[in-house]
Amino acid sequence: MLTLFYAPGACSMAAHVVLEESGEKYQTHRLNLSKGEQKTAEYMKIHPLGRVPALKLDDGSPLAENTAILPYLGKRFDMWPTDLIKEAKALSVVGFFASSVHPAHGHIGRPERYTADTAAFPGIQAMGKKTFHDYLKQIDAMYAGREWLSDTYSVLDPYALVFYNWGVKRELPVAALKHYTAFKDRMLERPAVQRVLADEGVKL
Amino acid sequence: MLTLFYAPGACSMAAHVVLEESGEKYQTHRLNLSKGEQKTAEYMKIHPLGRVPALKLDDGSPLAENTAILPYLGKRFDMWPTDLIKEAKALSVVGFFASSVHPAHGHIGRPERYTADTAAFPGIQAMGKKTFHDYLKQIDAMYAGREWLSDTYSVLDPYALVFYNWGVKRELPVAALKHYTAFKDRMLERPAVQRVLADEGVKL
Repeated sequence: MLTLFYAPGACSMAAHVVLEESGEKYQTHRLNLSKGEQKTAEYMKIHPLGRVPALKLDDGSPLAENTAILPYLGKRFDMWPTDLIKEAKALSVVGFFASSVHPAHGHIGRPERYTADTAAFPGIQAMGKKTFHDYLKQIDAMYAGREWLSDTYSVLDPYALVFYNWGVKRELPVAALKHYTAFKDRMLERPAVQRVLADEGVKL
Repeated sequence: MLTLFYAPGACSMAAHVVLEESGEKYQTHRLNLSKGEQKTAEYMKIHPLGRVPALKLDDGSPLAENTAILPYLGKRFDMWPTDLIKEAKALSVVGFFASSVHPAHGHIGRPERYTADTAAFPGIQAMGKKTFHDYLKQIDAMYAGREWLSDTYSVLDPYALVFYNWGVKRELPVAALKHYTAFKDRMLERPAVQRVLADEGVKL
C-alpha cells in the first residue's frame, strides 16, 4: 500500500488529492512543519532534503519530488496522458510549477533560505510576491478556454490548485484571475477534493 | 528533425550532449543570453519564460523545461529507464536538479531576480553559493560506488555534468568531490561530450 507523507496546505496537497481520487486504499502520515517534524533523522531517510511530499511505495522504498510522485501516481491511476508528446507537455507543466512557481512562493515565506541578512528579507519577500503573482497570471492564461490543463482531468490540475490556495493565503487578488478561479470552482465540486481540503483545513 | 535552442555553458548543455550521443541528425540554434536573445518576441513564442533549453519537435511544436525535454529525449534515444519505479526515481533526480540545485545557482548569478534592493545582493549570492555547494556534495554522494546515476548511462548524467561545470565556474572546491570528479572524468572520455564541450567552449 502507498503511504503519503504530507503537511496541511503544502504542495503535497496535489498528491493527496490524486490518491483520494484514485479510490485505492492508501495511508497518510501527517507532518507538522512548524514543529520541524520534516527534519528528523527518521524522516530524512525518506526525503533527504526534509521536505514534503514523499511517497513510500509498495515495496517500502521512498520517492521524493512532485516531479516524480505526480507522474508516477498519474500513470498508476489513469490521470496522465499516454501519448508521448502529450506526456512531454505535461512534464513541462510539472517542471514549470516545481522549478519556477513553487520557488517564487518560497521567497515570500522562507526568506531565511536565501540570505543571512535579515534586513534583506522585506525586499526578497516583495519580489517573491510579485514574481509569484506573475506566475499565477500565467496559469490563469493556461486555463483560458479549457477545462483542464491536459486533454482530460490529470495530476496537473490538483497541482495547479495548490498555487491558487497559496495565492489566497498571500492575499493576492486571485479572484480577478477568471479562468483560474473558474477552474478552482470546478475542483471544489469534486468529492475527492472536498474531502482533502476538509482533512487539511484548507478553505477556498 | 529536432531543433535545440541552447546557450553555451547553460543547463541546455545536458540536452545538447544527449542529442549528440543519439547519432540522430538535429539542428541547433545558439542564443546569446548576454545580448538578451532569449527575450525576443519570436523566441518567447517557443519558450514563454524566455529561457533555455527549448526543443522544437518534429511537428514544429515547442517543448520547454529540462524536466520534460530530458525524459522525452531519453525515451527517444534509449537513455531512460523503462521500468516504472526506476523511471520514477529518475524523475525524482531530474526534479531535484531542476527545482533545487539549479535555482540555488541562480541566486549567485542573478540576484536581481530575487530583490530590487542592490545592497542585499552580496548576502543572497553568499547564501546561494553555500546552498549550491551543499547540493554539489549531495550529488557527489549520489555517485558514490556507481558509474552512472541510473543503472546505465542516461540523460541524468549529462544533466549532472552541467552543475559540475557551474561549480568550477564559481570557483568552488569541486576537485575535492571525489566521486563527482571521477564521474566528470568518465564523461570527458565520451566523444559526444568532447564535441559538445568544444562547441560550447567549456573546459573541464
